[in-house]
Amino acid sequence: MSQEINRVACIGGGVIGGGWVARFLLNGIDVAVHDPHPDARRIVGEVLDNARNAYRRLLSAPLCAEGALTFHDELADAVADADYIQESVPERLDLKHRVIAAIEAAVNPDALIGSSTSGFKPSELQQGARHRGRIFVAHPFNPVYLVPLVELVGSEANSAAVMDRATAILSETGMHPLLVRAEIDAHIADRLLEAVWRESLWLVKDGIASTQEIDDAIRYGFGLRWAQMGLFETYRIAGGEAGMKHFIGQFGPALKWPWTKLMDVPELTDELVNEIASQSDAQSGAHSLRELERIRDGNLIGILQALRANNWGAGQTLREMNNRFFERAKVEAKDATPDYGKPLTLHRAEVRGDWLDYNGHMTEHRYLQVFGDATDAFLGHIGMNDAYRAQGLSVYTVETHIRHLAETAANVRLAVQTTLLGYDDKRIHLLHEMTDPAGTIQATAEHMLLHVDTRANCACPMRAPLGDKLAAMAPGQRSISHPDHAGSAIRDIGWPAKEMA
Amino acid sequence: MSQEINRVACIGGGVIGGGWVARFLLNGIDVAVHDPHPDARRIVGEVLDNARNAYRRLLSAPLCAEGALTFHDELADAVADADYIQESVPERLDLKHRVIAAIEAAVNPDALIGSSTSGFKPSELQQGARHRGRIFVAHPFNPVYLVPLVELVGSEANSAAVMDRATAILSETGMHPLLVRAEIDAHIADRLLEAVWRESLWLVKDGIASTQEIDDAIRYGFGLRWAQMGLFETYRIAGGEAGMKHFIGQFGPALKWPWTKLMDVPELTDELVNEIASQSDAQSGAHSLRELERIRDGNLIGILQALRANNWGAGQTLREMNNRFFERAKVEAKDATPDYGKPLTLHRAEVRGDWLDYNGHMTEHRYLQVFGDATDAFLGHIGMNDAYRAQGLSVYTVETHIRHLAETAANVRLAVQTTLLGYDDKRIHLLHEMTDPAGTIQATAEHMLLHVDTRANCACPMRAPLGDKLAAMAPGQRSISHPDHAGSAIRDIGWPAKEMA
Repeated sequence: MSQEINRVACIGGGVIGGGWVARFLLNGIDVAVHDPHPDARRIVGEVLDNARNAYRRLLSAPLCAEGALTFHDELADAVADADYIQESVPERLDLKHRVIAAIEAAVNPDALIGSSTSGFKPSELQQGARHRGRIFVAHPFNPVYLVPLVELVGSEANSAAVMDRATAILSETGMHPLLVRAEIDAHIADRLLEAVWRESLWLVKDGIASTQEIDDAIRYGFGLRWAQMGLFETYRIAGGEAGMKHFIGQFGPALKWPWTKLMDVPELTDELVNEIASQSDAQSGAHSLRELERIRDGNLIGILQALRANNWGAGQTLREMNNRFFERAKVEAKDATPDYGKPLTLHRAEVRGDWLDYNGHMTEHRYLQVFGDATDAFLGHIGMNDAYRAQGLSVYTVETHIRHLAETAANVRLAVQTTLLGYDDKRIHLLHEMTDPAGTIQATAEHMLLHVDTRANCACPMRAPLGDKLAAMAPGQRSISHPDHAGSAIRDIGWPAKEMA
Repeated sequence: MSQEINRVACIGGGVIGGGWVARFLLNGIDVAVHDPHPDARRIVGEVLDNARNAYRRLLSAPLCAEGALTFHDELADAVADADYIQESVPERLDLKHRVIAAIEAAVNPDALIGSSTSGFKPSELQQGARHRGRIFVAHPFNPVYLVPLVELVGSEANSAAVMDRATAILSETGMHPLLVRAEIDAHIADRLLEAVWRESLWLVKDGIASTQEIDDAIRYGFGLRWAQMGLFETYRIAGGEAGMKHFIGQFGPALKWPWTKLMDVPELTDELVNEIASQSDAQSGAHSLRELERIRDGNLIGILQALRANNWGAGQTLREMNNRFFERAKVEAKDATPDYGKPLTLHRAEVRGDWLDYNGHMTEHRYLQVFGDATDAFLGHIGMNDAYRAQGLSVYTVETHIRHLAETAANVRLAVQTTLLGYDDKRIHLLHEMTDPAGTIQATAEHMLLHVDTRANCACPMRAPLGDKLAAMAPGQRSISHPDHAGSAIRDIGWPAKEMA
């Protein structure tokens, strides 16, 4: 599907490699994996399961067809037809050199080779390579399928064209490539993380704070800020009306004060390692690793969706990714000629974890959300698009009748079948039936829609192409026999004859 | 309202002091402010406006009555009747000593005195004080009204009882007090921030990354993780199945590598300060400071609500705060005896910014959300609480008829008037009317509810006290004349006689 690449090879399939596999596959790209580790298939499979669950909740758009996943015993077979190779082997320079040499021996000449290294500079990776210019750092963050950042670092050997191509390829997978302009050990983010890590080790070693207390100082405090703005933008606000210079002037002197232990590095004695490990067990041991992963993913999804609603930072990246999935679904659906003699299936949705009520079923108003989206899909089908709306015309729902027939659980993939019950020049009468994959009707909704001039705020006749599209489907849709409940009202039940027990 | 305190004094009303004022006031506590700065009233007022807007969106519970806000020219007048004093004057030890002495001279003996200092140790603040044991550090994070963390730090002079009382008082305002067990310069969080700040200054000075690039490395990457889990829990997951010891073993050696500039401190030359300020302008200058604050608050609200939905970290703190507001609203409403001869107003809501559709009106399914919440309020009124549900009993909506009569805009405060249209031993028939503050009906909803045994998944008769409560309101509710639309259906409009233009 991608304009950029047809096939990716992932060399190394651990937590990071598996995350890359998931990122590419779920964005519709074929992935060939090579990893000699006996558990590689299992680990990749588990990461993929997490990623599939995450994407179903992350995106409102339907997921696209996954790419094909293949495992190869020989590295040469994995990379042979690949346009892009992502290397994620352990962090040892001699090993990375051997793997890169093996990739270069088997790959086609214009394929790109990105390395997940968190510490090595691209010029170090390129030592002894045949084509240094196609080898660069593409450093991701765990979980790779959800966190958008990837640091792209080249050396003098890499052309701007190569880095641009890498940026385009990774952007297509919903990532946010950050082009690092100068190579240094550990790039940008890990230098900051290393600084916090060193200071935290001192806090634990000196008995000032436990791992739990340090984590709480982060996640109840500045971590909430850093999910949306970084250090400088946050401090710009903190500086208030006096601005950034004032802020630096005010806090600058603290740089000279002994506020950190950073001049020194704590010795990682067995005692300190055991202390940290046992504090971490006390802090997080109540959750298994798998549970912690699910909690983390659920939180990341919520945070990303919150930022998407505000169209800010990583939420913008998600919005673009979601739009790409919607566009792709449209392209895939374009070939199908609808049979107007049957109800139309124009919208599908999946019940998300945050849509549930205290009974564990889809909460009431989410049914109307799915029906509303189905109405929008119908309106899009008859030609109501952004250009049509830009004329100051829209369609409002004036009346809705919902019947709940089943309790819909989490993760159920829903389809909505829509029938046109009638229309005139200003009104459209629709019936939706929401079904689960077994075809069981979960709920029905009947809607009366009114075509309006949004500036004059009154009803007005539809314009082209809506009338023609409705007329085209009218003969077929009229031939569908309507269910009894169409046009029905809620029936009066009266009052009890005597007091209830 | 608080069990703990009746009146707080805030000494210093800048960005941090104003944030404290808002945190206390909006939690129903009276606040007396002293700040000799000529703009203090304006600055506090602006922070309060932001905070009010934020709380309306942050909480689903109705806001409580605000505390009374007074400004005092004399410090002694501000602190005279206060149970708790929060000092937020500029970060100079001599000034803090003078202010604390003035507070002690005027305050009652058992009042507590918290300092917002980001750097000084409590033992330093206590030097020369009359009652050292009541003076401690209460270090908050900007914006104080939204970020839950407050670091509480005492010295040997502070009793556990004093620190417990401070913890209780600040918890009542929706904060998450973190008791720091040993006093050090800059407490915990600012040591971590200082480490990142120093490393970031080097990255800018060495021309490796701009302020924008550093911020992006944070907010598209590890910042998303730190809003929910801190450093250690994140690395525990990254370590994978091999665990925390393995992780430290793997990344431990990097401590010895020259990954940071932390052994050294950059000189804050005019050149570097100007470089940072101009990069910050290029990065954030398109937004005014007020806009950035609103963006920041909107993102924090979204992130906190996402974490609340998952009941995790700062989201748990928000959930508890929200529940407290709900409880308070119940207490306030308890006095009112409902007149069953009229429709009942049991639910109010405000149209949130993220509830709007592309027409700028409340999106379709949010009407049903408000009506659903009104149904829940009605069910709560007749005795359906957690204890009732714990019997495996619940009420499902089986049919809904919504009529949209107006387009509802952002921030409108809605009220829902509910009429019982009838009931039997298993069913309840309700009519809701949603009105704006002018009394204009925005929409109506008619619901048929079914009482169910959730384990057997079938309808079953209601149990006490539901029947008695319904019987008690039945005579009054029957006397209300029903509007014509009650029991109405969506009317068929047929098909056009000829093709539309």
